[in-house]
Amino acid sequence: MSYTIFEDGHISSPAGFRATGVSCGLKEGSKARDLALVYSIRPCTAAAMFTTSVTRAAPVFLSQAILARNREAVRAVLINSGQANAGTGQPGLTDAIECAKLVADELEIQRDAVLLMSTGIIGVPLPMARMRDGIRRAVSELDSGGGKRAAVAILTTDSRPKERVYRVQLREGQRATMAGIAKGTRMIHPQLATLLCLITTDMAIEARLLSRALQQSVGRSFNRLSLDGDTSPNDMICVLANGAAEAPPISDAGSWEFGAFQEALDHLCADLSQQIVRDAAGGGKIIQVTVRGATSEENARLIAQAVARSSSLRRTVRRGQPDWGALLAAVGASGAELRPELVELRAGPIVLMQEGMPLSFDQGTAMQTFSSPEIEFTVDLHLGPCELRVWTCTWHDE
Amino acid sequence: MSYTIFEDGHISSPAGFRATGVSCGLKEGSKARDLALVYSIRPCTAAAMFTTSVTRAAPVFLSQAILARNREAVRAVLINSGQANAGTGQPGLTDAIECAKLVADELEIQRDAVLLMSTGIIGVPLPMARMRDGIRRAVSELDSGGGKRAAVAILTTDSRPKERVYRVQLREGQRATMAGIAKGTRMIHPQLATLLCLITTDMAIEARLLSRALQQSVGRSFNRLSLDGDTSPNDMICVLANGAAEAPPISDAGSWEFGAFQEALDHLCADLSQQIVRDAAGGGKIIQVTVRGATSEENARLIAQAVARSSSLRRTVRRGQPDWGALLAAVGASGAELRPELVELRAGPIVLMQEGMPLSFDQGTAMQTFSSPEIEFTVDLHLGPCELRVWTCTWHDE
Repeated sequence: MSYTIFEDGHISSPAGFRATGVSCGLKEGSKARDLALVYSIRPCTAAAMFTTSVTRAAPVFLSQAILARNREAVRAVLINSGQANAGTGQPGLTDAIECAKLVADELEIQRDAVLLMSTGIIGVPLPMARMRDGIRRAVSELDSGGGKRAAVAILTTDSRPKERVYRVQLREGQRATMAGIAKGTRMIHPQLATLLCLITTDMAIEARLLSRALQQSVGRSFNRLSLDGDTSPNDMICVLANGAAEAPPISDAGSWEFGAFQEALDHLCADLSQQIVRDAAGGGKIIQVTVRGATSEENARLIAQAVARSSSLRRTVRRGQPDWGALLAAVGASGAELRPELVELRAGPIVLMQEGMPLSFDQGTAMQTFSSPEIEFTVDLHLGPCELRVWTCTWHDE
Repeated sequence: MSYTIFEDGHISSPAGFRATGVSCGLKEGSKARDLALVYSIRPCTAAAMFTTSVTRAAPVFLSQAILARNREAVRAVLINSGQANAGTGQPGLTDAIECAKLVADELEIQRDAVLLMSTGIIGVPLPMARMRDGIRRAVSELDSGGGKRAAVAILTTDSRPKERVYRVQLREGQRATMAGIAKGTRMIHPQLATLLCLITTDMAIEARLLSRALQQSVGRSFNRLSLDGDTSPNDMICVLANGAAEAPPISDAGSWEFGAFQEALDHLCADLSQQIVRDAAGGGKIIQVTVRGATSEENARLIAQAVARSSSLRRTVRRGQPDWGALLAAVGASGAELRPELVELRAGPIVLMQEGMPLSFDQGTAMQTFSSPEIEFTVDLHLGPCELRVWTCTWHDE
């Protein structure tokens, strides 16, 4: 199996999928599309990952409940933007259930075949009259060519849609498609920049393997973003596989097919997560933090997150000044296991510290490194075999 | 025992203390005072708390080593600003040892009677020729009236000195004094805004009780600040008690005298820590976060810190807009034990959410609350007996 980018593809490019995005007035004072529907003519195996927040939004709560009993025959995902249906208590859950029921009734599918996602303002009840109208219109407009409308309808403060589609070459001339859309920038008033991602494919894969593949891909991509340290009650990533490409189902974790599926999903998630960082950065700078030589992945993660979140270091990068004291401070205060006398720090090509001692460096190169639009910090602990990389960005208005 | 504010007091107001602050050229291009020396004519019991960073600065390392073997006869504290002597490896430690030795030799006291503190740029070796000259001048200028000079000499990016002095009324007409100076704002280029605090008193108290009292006072004051989430390699808080007021030594944790000492120290630390928040805020806003009804202090702390650090909520407060979705998001993502259906959220006098449900509120009052220079958020979990409060601030350039 190998894959190539399908330039004009969209979320309903995989065989058997239909999609659309309509406007139903969820975004205050705007006629922008705000309700996306993605539907499969065949039952899909499904896997999803959810926010770790305990105050999770009603759509997250409902989708978790659906997937707990049905991971083999999901048919549709309804995504609304503008209103998060979070912090809305029991009435919010009642609204979510009604939305899912209406989608099921209109599509004439089972009620437990509908998943929900949402993003937008917290603490405001969904305007149900508009939702009912919007759902009916969305169902009537479903189209195999409608994916681009769906990609737009899930956005809030994003400056552009985030899509990626692969044409996948299977064995013996068979072809399949894998497509993804995502939204997410950072928390900006008045919306919480929830991370949402939906992936569709016409390959066939057992639900347990799909779940395993998604966990790995997300662990290496979306979970490596540290945009502002905020976790939304609505974060959700979901993948649907409907088997419409008619290739044999993937059922063996040791198979060549599963490895290839994993590789494509890894790349798709990495691509979409990078699109999110780049959109979030806007006029700001992208910061890549690589931690090497850690004794455990957890230690590497602690340091990478501490560096990514250091407001002092972010300020330094934003101002383009080659001061790296904040980098050392973040590493030291991270809580990770390290030996100060072994620590090596780099900014781009410049070695700032080696074996715990500061090195002198060329100020011109340093100014250039710190003032470029992308900067990579590397922390090598020289203690163990573990390595990890995260991305963050500064903002022009930080 | 009762205490009153001593308006013209300073760090050498307690009997038997001498202090000064000189300029020795540690601050690039500035003639500002940058080297403070505080000395006691009698041996002091001493207690200190240090940064939790593992890449701690040489002066912290040395002071920890000194206090491990001498908590009964400390005589002097040397504090330099402008150069942190952090990230300087073994040569930095050699420099620190030489500074302490020079102070001891010039004062003709034991070498293990000298503590060091420092704050400033990381990763640059101390200019030892200037330090030697500065130490000699500081020793020659020590003066019982020199405390104001010391308070200024420890500052970096602070806009004003932070001092507080209490006159303490002991039993039977005896009087004593307790004084404190502090520095700290936030991490600003190019200095790391280390938290430093030195407290002197002419009361007498056993070292183990002094340590116990300091831990409690700091836990309720400095450790409740969350200014930008950064921990410096140089943070240090130290208290010296020389007994020169000639009152009986405090040696019983259950005594009236210990309780009163604790109360004065609690207030002194709270006062100095509030001075730091107010200086840090500058043109920004002060945010107080109170968490109630938690099942443990750790759970309360998790939520308070998550709220204080939420960049979305900070942005909302900075802009004066009454959007509280970020408050709920921070509470939910904090990792603390809670039941969403019991959560109550308030902003100043406004109840935003009760029993997990959003309430409607007067928009005018809300605008007023969110646009005032100080705002208090209250999170009541309605689960347990624990309560905790932290302070943070936004900045005009955030």
